[in-house]
Amino acid sequence: MGGDHGPKVTLPAVFEFLRRDKDCATILVGREEALRPLLGQADEEFGERLRLRHASEVVAMDEPVASALRNKKDSSMRVVANLVKEGAADAAISAGNTGALMAVSRFVLKTLPGIDRPAIAGILPTAKGYTYMLDLGANVDCQPEHLLQFGIMGAMLVSALDHKERPSVGLLNIGEEDIKGSDVVKRAAELLRDSGLNFYGNVEGNDIFKGTTDVVICDGFVGNVVLKASEGLAQMIGNSLKEEFSRNAFTKLGALMALPAIRAFKRRFDHRRYNGASLLGLNGIVVKSHGSADVLAFFTALERAAEAARQRLPEKIASRMAQAMPAAA
Amino acid sequence: MGGDHGPKVTLPAVFEFLRRDKDCATILVGREEALRPLLGQADEEFGERLRLRHASEVVAMDEPVASALRNKKDSSMRVVANLVKEGAADAAISAGNTGALMAVSRFVLKTLPGIDRPAIAGILPTAKGYTYMLDLGANVDCQPEHLLQFGIMGAMLVSALDHKERPSVGLLNIGEEDIKGSDVVKRAAELLRDSGLNFYGNVEGNDIFKGTTDVVICDGFVGNVVLKASEGLAQMIGNSLKEEFSRNAFTKLGALMALPAIRAFKRRFDHRRYNGASLLGLNGIVVKSHGSADVLAFFTALERAAEAARQRLPEKIASRMAQAMPAAA
Repeated sequence: MGGDHGPKVTLPAVFEFLRRDKDCATILVGREEALRPLLGQADEEFGERLRLRHASEVVAMDEPVASALRNKKDSSMRVVANLVKEGAADAAISAGNTGALMAVSRFVLKTLPGIDRPAIAGILPTAKGYTYMLDLGANVDCQPEHLLQFGIMGAMLVSALDHKERPSVGLLNIGEEDIKGSDVVKRAAELLRDSGLNFYGNVEGNDIFKGTTDVVICDGFVGNVVLKASEGLAQMIGNSLKEEFSRNAFTKLGALMALPAIRAFKRRFDHRRYNGASLLGLNGIVVKSHGSADVLAFFTALERAAEAARQRLPEKIASRMAQAMPAAA
Repeated sequence: MGGDHGPKVTLPAVFEFLRRDKDCATILVGREEALRPLLGQADEEFGERLRLRHASEVVAMDEPVASALRNKKDSSMRVVANLVKEGAADAAISAGNTGALMAVSRFVLKTLPGIDRPAIAGILPTAKGYTYMLDLGANVDCQPEHLLQFGIMGAMLVSALDHKERPSVGLLNIGEEDIKGSDVVKRAAELLRDSGLNFYGNVEGNDIFKGTTDVVICDGFVGNVVLKASEGLAQMIGNSLKEEFSRNAFTKLGALMALPAIRAFKRRFDHRRYNGASLLGLNGIVVKSHGSADVLAFFTALERAAEAARQRLPEKIASRMAQAMPAAA
């Protein structure tokens, strides 16, 4: 029950989720003595659909991954992963330290057959709606086979969450032509072309926000840098607009008059609607909520985890991987 | 005299440049029969400071680099590079095909001693002002030594153009900690730390637009993707704001009232003020103007090329490289 804001964000989100998704139940994992008093009348309202599972330890946001793995056997992260492994939960969701969550989840749940490396898939707003991008930072150096696996996992994710049958997959590169890019990317393009996926071909940086494809594939170094650069740019633009609008009485009046348009604009790119990154390739569903998520954002991540569970995403990825590896089958 | 708009943009920019920089002269390179009639009274106004040099061929924007190199011996690009090589010009500026410009410049001018690979350095607006980033696409796969060379070239560029003595240099990575990132980046950090540069350490994607350092170093794949993604995001945000403001009479009135603030905002991030990417590491100054540059943007690129020439940038890079390689000296 972590994240920057703790239970005061996650609990209301869980309650809202339980009210809307009547087929779902939730197990809250954390220090029981801290969580129990916060439940109020939720026990009565949700009964067996809301349970509490004690975990005595917490992985700190800045804790090294190795320490989280070795020393925190009763961390909420570890307990959640165990619940998924035992089948007591269909999906895990955490707002904690991403590196530790990936390491713990991978250690407990293991990867799916055929998947060498799990990846982190996030959602970015585009001119047309939104797009999924992976990997966002789990894998720094990738081989062509890994990028192929990301393509398959990403396509299955979009199929599960958006119910699209053949989502388009683009490979992030520095030019649209086949001859461009590193050897790894060129070879990955060949593998993707032969994969049976709806492979669009190479896409460039500007294609991400154009929404050229449903899925954008890249290694975790590029994905992480692009994601953070985009967040930084959006923030800079937002702050500068605010500054200009608050410069004097005239600009403030202007801001007031412009409010309806600015609000509509903000709704369109409300990052809370894009919360919930999927840790793909694991033998179980794990969703990472942004640390600074508010109630709506955490609720969105819960919905995403629930839909992935309903659609049995890991089984879908595993069966698609089996197709992709006829020789190994 | 290329670019998307041709001489109707480049000529007025050159005239303005000659009016402001009285110590400079310009040689226009292109088809004489096309350029001559456009000069009007410029001959009279600028006399010997404005010359024309015929070039019979043009490298197309989509022409393969190999073809530009092999078949276009009298392209304007080639002629310009030759003028720099012969010392007839102190700097070259082109709005043409970037890949061809780099290949032709490298072939004609050669690289500076100690520089394995020339790089493209561009300027990005930040919350604090602006930052220089390289490489933006010339080198897809980089070794640690190349990233070190980019650091040295970037620092010398900032020294020359902004007259900063010890510009700060950041290495783009996926975390601030030393243990993060690929092996290449980790090793590059060690080299940069021992280089005598004002090395800040690792920076993340969001640091680019925060303006954490004067220079941001990365390989050309990452740099190109980040640059294009940022352009795409800025465009998406701009278009969406426009759409929301033109939705109905009320939002249009709002836009009108907000105009002063929006104009101030636009001035702040006017991409024309950031035009003129430097092709660094060559034995001569070559500046690439954006293909879609307008008069102000092309003028900015001309000013940048002139200042690099006044500051003798290639000599500065060569002498700094000699320091960095005491063993080889």
